[in-house]
Amino acid sequence: MMHSLTLSDVLADHARSRPQVTAVVDGELRLTYPELDGRVTRLASALDGMGVSRGDRVLWLGQNAYAVLELLLACSRLGAIFCPANWRQSQDELRFVLADLTPAAVFWEHSETVAPLRDDRWIQAGEAYERLLADAPVRKFDQVADTEPTLALYTAAFDGRPSAALLSSAALVAHATSLLVVRQMEPGFTFLNNGPLFHVGTMMFCLATLQIGGTNVFTPAFDPEEVCRLVDAERVTQAFLFGGMIDAVAKANAGGKYDLSSLRFVAHSAEWDDMITVDDSPWCRSGMGGYGQTEVGGMLTFLGLAEGGAGLAGRPSPLAQVRILGPDGVEVPVGETGEICARGKTLFSGYFARPDLNAQKSAFGWHHTGDLGRREPDGTITFIGPKLRMIKSGAENVYPAEVERALKTHPAVADAAVIGVPDPQWHQAVKAVVALKPSAQATEDELIAHVRGLLASYKKPRHVTFVDTIPKRGFTPDYDALDAAHGGGNYPGT
Amino acid sequence: MMHSLTLSDVLADHARSRPQVTAVVDGELRLTYPELDGRVTRLASALDGMGVSRGDRVLWLGQNAYAVLELLLACSRLGAIFCPANWRQSQDELRFVLADLTPAAVFWEHSETVAPLRDDRWIQAGEAYERLLADAPVRKFDQVADTEPTLALYTAAFDGRPSAALLSSAALVAHATSLLVVRQMEPGFTFLNNGPLFHVGTMMFCLATLQIGGTNVFTPAFDPEEVCRLVDAERVTQAFLFGGMIDAVAKANAGGKYDLSSLRFVAHSAEWDDMITVDDSPWCRSGMGGYGQTEVGGMLTFLGLAEGGAGLAGRPSPLAQVRILGPDGVEVPVGETGEICARGKTLFSGYFARPDLNAQKSAFGWHHTGDLGRREPDGTITFIGPKLRMIKSGAENVYPAEVERALKTHPAVADAAVIGVPDPQWHQAVKAVVALKPSAQATEDELIAHVRGLLASYKKPRHVTFVDTIPKRGFTPDYDALDAAHGGGNYPGT
Repeated sequence: MMHSLTLSDVLADHARSRPQVTAVVDGELRLTYPELDGRVTRLASALDGMGVSRGDRVLWLGQNAYAVLELLLACSRLGAIFCPANWRQSQDELRFVLADLTPAAVFWEHSETVAPLRDDRWIQAGEAYERLLADAPVRKFDQVADTEPTLALYTAAFDGRPSAALLSSAALVAHATSLLVVRQMEPGFTFLNNGPLFHVGTMMFCLATLQIGGTNVFTPAFDPEEVCRLVDAERVTQAFLFGGMIDAVAKANAGGKYDLSSLRFVAHSAEWDDMITVDDSPWCRSGMGGYGQTEVGGMLTFLGLAEGGAGLAGRPSPLAQVRILGPDGVEVPVGETGEICARGKTLFSGYFARPDLNAQKSAFGWHHTGDLGRREPDGTITFIGPKLRMIKSGAENVYPAEVERALKTHPAVADAAVIGVPDPQWHQAVKAVVALKPSAQATEDELIAHVRGLLASYKKPRHVTFVDTIPKRGFTPDYDALDAAHGGGNYPGT
Repeated sequence: MMHSLTLSDVLADHARSRPQVTAVVDGELRLTYPELDGRVTRLASALDGMGVSRGDRVLWLGQNAYAVLELLLACSRLGAIFCPANWRQSQDELRFVLADLTPAAVFWEHSETVAPLRDDRWIQAGEAYERLLADAPVRKFDQVADTEPTLALYTAAFDGRPSAALLSSAALVAHATSLLVVRQMEPGFTFLNNGPLFHVGTMMFCLATLQIGGTNVFTPAFDPEEVCRLVDAERVTQAFLFGGMIDAVAKANAGGKYDLSSLRFVAHSAEWDDMITVDDSPWCRSGMGGYGQTEVGGMLTFLGLAEGGAGLAGRPSPLAQVRILGPDGVEVPVGETGEICARGKTLFSGYFARPDLNAQKSAFGWHHTGDLGRREPDGTITFIGPKLRMIKSGAENVYPAEVERALKTHPAVADAAVIGVPDPQWHQAVKAVVALKPSAQATEDELIAHVRGLLASYKKPRHVTFVDTIPKRGFTPDYDALDAAHGGGNYPGT
């Protein structure tokens, strides 16, 4: 255990090394590292008192809040697993998460979707949560191995339902450190958590900020004017912004009402560059990002490690290895397409309660990302696209299998396939190709409403086309034929 | 093994991700990452053929050379442990290392000290080494867990003899990554290995340069003009330089013969700052260094993480925890002196073949550094001095126990104690206080020559004082009384 370093340990060290540094800002709440450490100890005690044991799951049903970070750290202290659920999900989806994860404790914020699901043991955010902390005893906890999972994030609907990727403290700390390297984060870094914390893209920067002893500012969800206000008030270094979000923030601050100069971020537009400080770190200099997924802790490759490189995804994280493997587990030659596979310090510990999927994803001793890639002659990597079809609508990934599954629960539907069609605003729009049962009837609007009742709104089809039969290739829809017949295209990576 | 990342793995990934990058420069020799990877595989095959198995030790007796990095990486690939011995040691000291480490293979460079010790199985650097590689088959190796030790560095003479600190790939990779963070190292980083690779101070930057896929330039030992030539020729980013070494390099380049502008380093003097590019990374900005030792992989705290802080050693590495503990294992209050103790990803795996010492150093589940420190009110750490006495002569640490042991092997010596006296040039000079056996005789020069025959020259006493008896406190010399009586002082940290 001499080599173990959990998220809880990181916090415990900051409480000593950074007694005067603000760890958390959320509305009126401001916590220094010692205050956060003390609250996390009480929260862990409270969870323990509620019967949460090592390996048990604790679920958060709500938007971004300081409680998300506190619950994660308390679970790390206790050896439990924290899951911030996607609050944009439908009731049916949330019911699935509850049944799949079997949480020992649930914390919730009031919403019309969540309220009807709750039971009496659930703790509501706000007063009940604060009372729980206030009443909890301060006690000591045994050291937890950093190889134990401590965060669960639902992702990738391989079989029509998402799975919870389990991330250990060791993986989260390693990934955070890789961001410290590429983003050149320093003490004093202040991150605005305005993207959803149930996505690894926001969570990874929240945890890197924790790792370097910086300040995490929380806001429930993205609001351009509120982003401006918080950047100004808290001298924020970085927020979760890209593409259209940057334009929206620039527009909200068009009059220069707020001082955004503390933001050290990517160049984007002349207007934006004038408001902020254009940053020179590899992360900002070479085009943010690279290739990543929840299962590798966030980023597997970084554009910032491959300035001027040929590959569109950059080069691997300093803490991971990448191989482009064929279906036989053998590395494919440079320039040829294979599956992007990985090993290393940042990798997940498998999906919760998915033994078959875990065996399949770790074939030949390498994590199989499910994504296709290519090694360029200069050694950089190009991401080509998902091995299974994926549709990109706005910033969201839509997996056809998941939408098809929803469509097929409608009594009139015999079969269904989902494709992505080019969309000027959202890159792609979801299109359903549906075969109805003999003599059954259903309208386009009816089927869209049906899916809307089962899945997050952004997953619902924008268009429905009716056909007699869905063309097949083996057991799966023949997506190429469907694309050709129904205007599919613009898939990510093409 | 999905989460394992050995030094060998790092190299294997660079061979794919950086096919055109120069990994190694040594005289006329230039190796790209794929070339280095191929040579390391052949060297590992050759070691395997020589009977080197997992956990076996491989010893290097020579100055800096490309072979040091190749042997380390080959040992990592094979699961063996590489030790670059201190080439400044005496024959007696080297004999001790050979007997202590029981290496399965020894590689040596010709020197007057080493030549008389060699046996026929030893491989000489140069032709014999290259022949070994050329003749070796290319084979595959099983994956090695990164928790296995792969580097042994002799350090700290607790009981009068040094011990080999064992460092795993996991610790070395974690420490390298901490340097990437604080030094803000990027791809393209070129490090000149002009300090001794048997010291962690040089080795840690060599490995951080490997980690980020940079270029390691090797030179046998420090030569100011050669440093200038190599910086100019190889566009070196950083060399192993501090204090008087910087002055010597600036002096060697007084006429501006060489272009040193590629060096991104600390400000030092007006003359120096004009020659180089003053670097703004936390490592260079806030005064290089912090507190460290071989047993923590190099640095445990960084000044660069505590700009403007009160503590003279800065704040802990993002990958380690520090506690200031009392002798009972309980944390001492802020402002009080205790032992600097640590846990985390960069820590060593104990000393080779020292079970009692290992148990003692890991009391209460924390690595005990043997050094005294204090937590300041702002959370930063001040290093106070070694718990056991240590003398600082030039850049070298001299442990009294080691010199005392050497003195006591002289037939005329009954007892001896060693203290440090202030010295205008070397900070401290070694002074021996000696009690001779009844009616035995020995002169100051004779005793100095005796020690010189057993230990590195810098450890020999500069002064010898004769007394009737050495004052004791329990079993150890009463150093305070000895200092008071014989002019001791200027100890590091005071």
